[in-house]
This record gives sequence, C-alpha cells and structure tokens, in this order.
Amino acid sequence: MAKAIILLADGFEEIEAITVIDVLRRCGVGLEIVGLRKGYVRSARGVKIIPDKSIDEIANESIASFDAVILPGGGEGVENLKKSEKVRKLLNDFMSKSKQIAAICAAPTALASFGLLKNKKATVYPGLENELKEAGAEIANSKVIVDGNIITSRGPGTASDFAFEIARKLAGKEKTEEVAKAMLFS
Amino acid sequence: MAKAIILLADGFEEIEAITVIDVLRRCGVGLEIVGLRKGYVRSARGVKIIPDKSIDEIANESIASFDAVILPGGGEGVENLKKSEKVRKLLNDFMSKSKQIAAICAAPTALASFGLLKNKKATVYPGLENELKEAGAEIANSKVIVDGNIITSRGPGTASDFAFEIARKLAGKEKTEEVAKAMLFS
Repeated sequence: MAKAIILLADGFEEIEAITVIDVLRRCGVGLEIVGLRKGYVRSARGVKIIPDKSIDEIANESIASFDAVILPGGGEGVENLKKSEKVRKLLNDFMSKSKQIAAICAAPTALASFGLLKNKKATVYPGLENELKEAGAEIANSKVIVDGNIITSRGPGTASDFAFEIARKLAGKEKTEEVAKAMLFS
Repeated sequence: MAKAIILLADGFEEIEAITVIDVLRRCGVGLEIVGLRKGYVRSARGVKIIPDKSIDEIANESIASFDAVILPGGGEGVENLKKSEKVRKLLNDFMSKSKQIAAICAAPTALASFGLLKNKKATVYPGLENELKEAGAEIANSKVIVDGNIITSRGPGTASDFAFEIARKLAGKEKTEEVAKAMLFS
C-alpha cells in the first residue's frame, strides 16, 4: 500500500485538502493528515479539522516509508507552509529521494520558494505565475501538470483532477477509475 | 445575509459537506456546521471535524432565523441522520415553513423516510431510487433537481453543482457566479 502525507496549515483551502484525502483513502492509499501545529487546524473558511499527526511527530519519523507529500492551497495556508523550516526540510528530503510532490492553487509558490521548481513545468492559481517564473519554472496552463516527480494544479475547481492524478501514481489506473466512477466523477 | 445549517453525523461524505461549506461561506451565507453529537464528528474516510454547534444547541434556538438546512451523504452518516428524532423534527419544522431543504447522495433517502418527498421530483445516488419511489417521489436523473423548496443531488462528483445551486437560492446568481469563477469552477 502506498503511503502519503497531506500538510495542513491554518488557512488551508478545504475543498483542495478534503478532495485529495477522500479520493486517496478510497483508493487504498495510507494517507496521514499532518498539521503544522498541535491541536486542530483551521481552514480558510473556518472549518476546524483535527489532524492525525503533527509535523513534529512526522519530522521524528523516517520518511523512507512515505511515497508522496501533498500541499493544498489557500493564500494564508500557503504563507504558513512557506514560513516553516520543518516543511522546507521535509520537502527537500522528499525531493532528494525523487518521491512524489504535489501542490495545488497557491501551493506551487511554496515549492518555488523552496527552490524545487527550477527547470520544471508547472501550473498555479491564475495571477501567481510570476512567482514560479522567477524561481526558474516554465508555466504550463492545464488543469494538472506532471513533470517528473512534481504534480501541480490550479484551484478548487481542478481539485478532483489533481486528486485523481495523484491517485493514478499511487494506486494505479484501474483502482482510480473504479473510485472515480463510484464517486460519479466519470 | 442568508443563514443555513449543515448537519454532520458520524460517517458523512466529506467532499459533499466541505464543498457546500466552502462555497456558501465564500458567497457570504452564514453557515453553521452542526454536529449530531458533542465533540468532533468523523467523516466516512476518518476526517475529524469539530462542528460549530451541536444539534441540541440548535434545537433550543428558534429556527426562524435560518433559511436552509443541508444534508450531506455517506451511507453510515445518512443512517445516523435517519435514526435521529431531533433531525426529523428539525426537517419537519423547515418543511412546514417552506424553507430550503437540500440533500445529496444517500441523503435524499433520509428526506424520504421523514415523509418529505411525497409527489416531489428528486434525484439520489444511483441504486437508491426505490427508497424514494416507495415514499412517493418521482425520480429525475439530472445532477441537481429543484422541486419547490427541495434540492437534491447525486454524489461527490455533483457536489459543486449542488453547492452552487444552493448558493444561487441563498446569495443570488451574481455573487454565485463571481465565486464559481474565483474557484475555477466556471
């Protein structure tokens, strides 16, 4: 069974986070919801979610067992991800081991700020393209862009495309199509 | 400002709930997340959410200030809604005052079991149509069906259509279109 982490900071975009969680868990991926602080995290629209673990607990674990890390968007949430040295270190560890890294909406700007998008094709929420270009990324305008181990997407309206792309990488096409059908997405 | 309630019981479908919450709050609707028990509620895929209020607190308030009640799906969640006398009473109160009642996925079967779908056009998650027919509903197969004050829809893949239809009723077309565009749904 593939294993993955989704990182939730205060101000995360809730459709983007929950769509990935729902789809990946239906596909049998062992997904840990990881909060940037202890206790509950608050979404952009004030939904309080209790994570499975805090980033301190994950930072003390070996990341060897994980296959992917996912960053939802939300302006404030992404600013909180960018400011975290623990997130930077975790993402650099995932990058150095060529594990899957997925970011949607404003979150590709966090990957850019950590230096992970140099010479990579990527997409982002409209209006934020310059932050990616200045970090050496090549902008591509599709709902989801895959370049090597980096998956990027654009916003709440593309969250299901993003989630199913991650699911295909972690659980295979057949299982993903079965789940998409049961969820009435196809 | 319109006001609404979304009812969360253990086992609720998380994309259906969160999509409605996110869209309605972006549209300026005063949405209360109401849990069927105290403490956190657990979604179908194990996400722990802390509601704003419990149903006991809402039951003691006047419902006069609310314009709509929304029921997300999820098999186990809907069974828990059906079993609750407080939910039955709340929905009957909303019905008797012709307030908006919206249900998605398996949740239209809860409306059926409370006797609210007699001679109403409605839709439901595929395979559950007979429960609606036996309660006197007429099945219609679109992503979203509106009949009077009752809005029904089919599953996670139609959650955004469902949310935007509720938003149009509560916040108007113009605001809803502005929000759908910002969320990259249109």
